Amino acid sequence: MDAAKESLALSADGLAVEIIDQTKLPRKLEVIRLSEPTEFFEAIHKLKVRGAPAIGVCAALAISVFAKRALKKDPAISSLTLANYLTEQALYLESSRPTAVNLDWALSQMLDCIKTASHLSAPKLQETLQRRALEIYEDDISRCRKIAEAGFPLIKESMGILTHCNAGRLATVKYGTALAPIYLAHERGISLKVYADETRPLLQGARLTAFELTQAGIDTMVLCDSMSSILMSEGNIDMVIVGADRIAANGDSANKVGSSNLAIVANYYKVPFYVAAPASTIDLSARSGKEIPIEMRDQEEVRSMWYKEPMIYTRAQIFNPAFDVIDASLITGFILDSGLITQDFKEGLAHAKR
Amino acid sequence: MDAAKESLALSADGLAVEIIDQTKLPRKLEVIRLSEPTEFFEAIHKLKVRGAPAIGVCAALAISVFAKRALKKDPAISSLTLANYLTEQALYLESSRPTAVNLDWALSQMLDCIKTASHLSAPKLQETLQRRALEIYEDDISRCRKIAEAGFPLIKESMGILTHCNAGRLATVKYGTALAPIYLAHERGISLKVYADETRPLLQGARLTAFELTQAGIDTMVLCDSMSSILMSEGNIDMVIVGADRIAANGDSANKVGSSNLAIVANYYKVPFYVAAPASTIDLSARSGKEIPIEMRDQEEVRSMWYKEPMIYTRAQIFNPAFDVIDASLITGFILDSGLITQDFKEGLAHAKR
Repeated sequence: MDAAKESLALSADGLAVEIIDQTKLPRKLEVIRLSEPTEFFEAIHKLKVRGAPAIGVCAALAISVFAKRALKKDPAISSLTLANYLTEQALYLESSRPTAVNLDWALSQMLDCIKTASHLSAPKLQETLQRRALEIYEDDISRCRKIAEAGFPLIKESMGILTHCNAGRLATVKYGTALAPIYLAHERGISLKVYADETRPLLQGARLTAFELTQAGIDTMVLCDSMSSILMSEGNIDMVIVGADRIAANGDSANKVGSSNLAIVANYYKVPFYVAAPASTIDLSARSGKEIPIEMRDQEEVRSMWYKEPMIYTRAQIFNPAFDVIDASLITGFILDSGLITQDFKEGLAHAKR
Repeated sequence: MDAAKESLALSADGLAVEIIDQTKLPRKLEVIRLSEPTEFFEAIHKLKVRGAPAIGVCAALAISVFAKRALKKDPAISSLTLANYLTEQALYLESSRPTAVNLDWALSQMLDCIKTASHLSAPKLQETLQRRALEIYEDDISRCRKIAEAGFPLIKESMGILTHCNAGRLATVKYGTALAPIYLAHERGISLKVYADETRPLLQGARLTAFELTQAGIDTMVLCDSMSSILMSEGNIDMVIVGADRIAANGDSANKVGSSNLAIVANYYKVPFYVAAPASTIDLSARSGKEIPIEMRDQEEVRSMWYKEPMIYTRAQIFNPAFDVIDASLITGFILDSGLITQDFKEGLAHAKR
């Protein structure tokens, strides 16, 4: 795997997934191998691999890895035993993070594949699963490329673009979602400046977005999440682009906590606000944001995680939702692999999902 | 000085100011002594003492300390030499932080006092200055008490109140500004819940507000600055109260960066947003927020200050304004020592300042 371009890949022997350990950035660009179910669960839960598209792809590859390892351990395993084992592991991985629908989506793709191919021999089943996982992998790359093309026309010379969290190449296999049009514009010689919210509490903007953009030679400035109003009031921001973890049928979009605050501030200053995502992020079964489950995470992420010492007196409580929901009315448009949607979100999203 | 009640005081011998070193909180409640001009400058600049009212009081007491020390060092010092020396030190301290007008205000009170009393002998001048500084000190306590009374009627049983930064007892001599009505309501048996923005980058909410409120037995929950939208969307916040560092004649109010974002979000959810401050925070010479200077601070506060290691790749730039300006149109009312203003801000502020 080329860690300068890809954030994860199936290992050459098919027995592991290689990922950039994102908890080590920006200090160290380290690639680790995941092979056991508990390793995948922990990697997803602890955000070693993160970003809605990337965790979907990672989970799909994980099922392929589990199949190959099970077959290696017991070459005589029956197709039924293998299918049951893999189904169980898929449900286990699904519980690692509740908000991003791509994880559900990728695992249900693999579960469908298990069902459809369960009449085959165990080796054939394994081959089929590996093929399907690699399709999902390649599909992510191609969808991000299409998102880049769909968003590209929005970007003009010398723009200031603000983003929240990391929806860049590290959040996908390659290219990214929110950052994909930015990379494409940069490739095509358009000069722009990206403002990256640091994104508390896990600092994905500070640690990851600033890292990947500056490495690509793009002019990048980090701000605290609370500093967007002053930037917008001074006219520095021409557009906001963020990713999404789940888009409801009406356009309400769950994304990293703070996205909703940012959308409200952008709306106040009349700065266009776009959500970029592949179709796998759309969840038509959620009619609105009210039906999207919001993951609550450990208080220590806010109190002490990065610090030399705990920053909050022990008697105080801490609120730590991982996501919030951007109301559809605050969204200017969706930058999807199927193209740009700037009106009739409900119809457009239903169409894109088909 | 009783560090459980006061955040700063003139030492018994008048030769130093004792302050709680706020950079050590919440780990340690440590009182330090300031006596040399460079110690005061550094304490204010590095936020060992902070909060617009507290730094004003601290600077006033500093001038009294410098006078007493100069006289101790040279009992034969002339009144003129002393006055010149003190004037010079006042200008030096004024440059330690540009946004909070209370620092200017307190120092100009002391400068006026130097001028008026310069015909006296040096010992008499020193006595006069100490008396004036202690008046400013007592005045801060009494103004905060009046702010508490002015804001108290707004608070109802079981309210959720959100605040940003620290405008509590640690930001003043005693009681606080934004937190003063909350303390008073708590004293009077009203149960409420305070939500404290952690307040990046210097974490005054996490470190200081959560500390002082929980120590006082008030139910407190810390959130990241980006989490107010989700709380408000769920109906948890009935009111926002923040302090101010400078209030322009039209009501635009400079306060800790992020206050403007918060006011925009509160406005979106129709949550009342109040600014609490003593009259010394009003600067009628600034017609609007555009005329308030905004202090830019060191990038390392965002990149590395509290962390085990730097969190932002070295090639990325960092934006770090210390304040932003809340547009007057987003403010429901001002809680001042002279009472509550909820309309005709311009007239009300001009009247309060008189």
